[in-house]
Amino acid sequence: MDELHHTCQWGIGERWGDGSNETGMRRLSLTDDDKSVRDWFIKTTQGLGCTTTIDTMGNIFAVRPGIKKGAPTYAGSHLDTQPQGGRYDGILGVQAGIEMLKILNENRVETEYPVGVVNWTNEEGARFPLSVHASAVWADKLPLSQAHGLASIIPPNKPTPFIDELSRIGYHGPTPCSYTANPMAAHFELHIEQGPQLEATGRKVGIVTGAQAYRWYTVSVSGKSCHTGTTPFEHRADPLLIAAKCMVQAQASAHIKKGALASTGVVKVAPGSVNTVPDEVTFSLDLRAQSDGVLDDLEKELKTVFKQLADGDDSCNTESFWAGNRKPCTVEWRTDSVSKAVNFNESCIECVAKSARSVLVLAGKDDTSAMRLVSGAGHDSVMTSHRVPTAMIFVPSREGISHNPREFTSEEDCAIGAEVLTQSVLRYDRL
Amino acid sequence: MDELHHTCQWGIGERWGDGSNETGMRRLSLTDDDKSVRDWFIKTTQGLGCTTTIDTMGNIFAVRPGIKKGAPTYAGSHLDTQPQGGRYDGILGVQAGIEMLKILNENRVETEYPVGVVNWTNEEGARFPLSVHASAVWADKLPLSQAHGLASIIPPNKPTPFIDELSRIGYHGPTPCSYTANPMAAHFELHIEQGPQLEATGRKVGIVTGAQAYRWYTVSVSGKSCHTGTTPFEHRADPLLIAAKCMVQAQASAHIKKGALASTGVVKVAPGSVNTVPDEVTFSLDLRAQSDGVLDDLEKELKTVFKQLADGDDSCNTESFWAGNRKPCTVEWRTDSVSKAVNFNESCIECVAKSARSVLVLAGKDDTSAMRLVSGAGHDSVMTSHRVPTAMIFVPSREGISHNPREFTSEEDCAIGAEVLTQSVLRYDRL
Ligand SMILES: NC(=O)NCCC(=O)O
Ligand SMILES: NC(=O)NCCC(=O)O
Repeated sequence: MDELHHTCQWGIGERWGDGSNETGMRRLSLTDDDKSVRDWFIKTTQGLGCTTTIDTMGNIFAVRPGIKKGAPTYAGSHLDTQPQGGRYDGILGVQAGIEMLKILNENRVETEYPVGVVNWTNEEGARFPLSVHASAVWADKLPLSQAHGLASIIPPNKPTPFIDELSRIGYHGPTPCSYTANPMAAHFELHIEQGPQLEATGRKVGIVTGAQAYRWYTVSVSGKSCHTGTTPFEHRADPLLIAAKCMVQAQASAHIKKGALASTGVVKVAPGSVNTVPDEVTFSLDLRAQSDGVLDDLEKELKTVFKQLADGDDSCNTESFWAGNRKPCTVEWRTDSVSKAVNFNESCIECVAKSARSVLVLAGKDDTSAMRLVSGAGHDSVMTSHRVPTAMIFVPSREGISHNPREFTSEEDCAIGAEVLTQSVLRYDRL
Repeated sequence: MDELHHTCQWGIGERWGDGSNETGMRRLSLTDDDKSVRDWFIKTTQGLGCTTTIDTMGNIFAVRPGIKKGAPTYAGSHLDTQPQGGRYDGILGVQAGIEMLKILNENRVETEYPVGVVNWTNEEGARFPLSVHASAVWADKLPLSQAHGLASIIPPNKPTPFIDELSRIGYHGPTPCSYTANPMAAHFELHIEQGPQLEATGRKVGIVTGAQAYRWYTVSVSGKSCHTGTTPFEHRADPLLIAAKCMVQAQASAHIKKGALASTGVVKVAPGSVNTVPDEVTFSLDLRAQSDGVLDDLEKELKTVFKQLADGDDSCNTESFWAGNRKPCTVEWRTDSVSKAVNFNESCIECVAKSARSVLVLAGKDDTSAMRLVSGAGHDSVMTSHRVPTAMIFVPSREGISHNPREFTSEEDCAIGAEVLTQSVLRYDRL
């Protein structure tokens, strides 16, 4: 925990309490703060006897040799954060991996095959708006050129391609970012739950059996700019009014589909003048559901309804909201990413389940302190699971809060998670 | 018209047609383009024998001497534009004033008292979000210090105080910006209608008898950021959902009040990440109505309804839209400006009416080609009318389009408007 908080000096965020560790994090991918923590990661893992490899997406692989040569079993997660994020999301998983290396060294454990720790680049998809961005390239789910071209969206920086920033901080490595060129035996990830289930049920460990489906879109609504003071409603084609209705409608539609979610976090309004009705509004749309089928349905429904709203037809609303007679706007959808629902590997899940039992029993808790659950968030493990055996371990998030400076997991829970992670890697190595 | 289009080289905007003048304008207040056209204005009016004065808000007054000394009668408007504006809004009024000076010189007209042309600073309130910004200071309706402190809102510049940009372009003049220190006898303004009435009724000239009331607000909605993938709707306090509902509701409420308008042109969402439900959304709200009383009612109603929406209570909607059970958000209103409904001065209106009749008859049209109307937009004349006799002249806007690159008024209509302006100033001078 000391190491974890020590490394939070790079990217200190918003203060939320008086304690020395009671600040959030703002360590956006490929910023100077991200470079600092990467440099620390390399120095620390090399100090623990690892060889380190950097790939063409800036992913860093630290490997501790085993008895035999072969693909390493990895503990992995990410060191980047949300713009107003916390100290645990991603960071805990990488730090627990480093703790694993120390434990193995201190106890002179020889593994059958190499084991390692990986820090994946831009997992959050905050500064560069594609989550699991670099693990997706590794899993051959996203072309390298497209990943390199992705432009940043967080001010005050103006939009800058990913590759420029990667080169600028000196992390455009020579190793191909690819599961074939740089293989893994398996991938285990310790992560905070980021949701309320473990805490609400008094559990300590989540044995993550898979992750829900999610898709990101950029929706653009085009209308016609006009004067706010002289243009009667009937003459307006106001894309912001339509976008507002679409955002409300997206949540209404998701709500009535079992467990689906719809969210918007980014909105752009042009030209952006108080007394000009906008001509173009774009907004992000993040849709999630436990199954790809439900997500298909939701996408299809929203495509229809958004068009109806833009056409000025309000009859489509679950509960109608006012329209007036308007000139039509147009709506365009761009799909930015598709992450299908995944089930993790059974052997990996068993490694996690057995490790959880053993750690919890040693800690004086019983077996019911662990539960199986499905991840609501995407993770680099979702990408690795397309190519290699993968599973995840969750620990409780206080009040389910995440992507917020107040994100918190107790020291005890972090330690339990780290122990389950180490055991899971060792169990898999023996398998 | 040649001069008008010549000066549109400073701040060329979006192209909308093939013709050489078929581009819009982007001449944001106090930019280098604004400086260039100001330099041109001073050089041109001095070349026509005027003395020029710059005040502490950068307003420029060009005065042609009369037979007697005394307060000048002015033709005035503005040379700044919207970010995606046209070639006529404001520009026509200043150019017609310069044309008036030329006509007086060519015909060796001696006026009783001085006459002049004024270019008001930041009328649009686009880059610095307060309309009629500098005429409001002149009329003692806005304190100078507050006006100087106003920060820009249009990227890519980061927020910069008005006074810094005014000094940077060299237009922070020595004359106090004040109707007492720098008096006027009267103010006449030729402007495009920016609405559909003249064109729809086949009229050529609008005799503007006053302007409707309008108020600008910044509404801030605060919630709690959380993860889009792991946070069920019931646990969310999503300020963007509330803001979206408020924007829809504002238009619905305005719609049922006679002739009222509600519009949003600027939206800010923080932290601005695809997979984070925002914690803070601010949006501009521009409310207008023909009477202050209707505007009072609308403001009061919206303050109540926005709060109910933020509290998670949807029963208040004229037609309900879906809410789900949410955690409450909070809403705060900041009033940025209040412009009361005004009636222009009867003598000035009569000067305009008589001039319109005379110009239209000479042009072979009959008297019904002019109509009385009330301005939907705010104008510098609204501010001057609080202190000195004022009236305005409107000419038709094609399809009522304004605050849009396609804004257009025919050469014939511009010329008629300029003649009515010149005659109105002369008639008032004789009065
Ligand atoms: N764990 C996490 O916050 N990942 C970001 C990807 C997502 O949006 O689910
Ligand atoms: N005429 C004009 O566009 N003025 C801007 C002030 C307003 O918003 O009405």
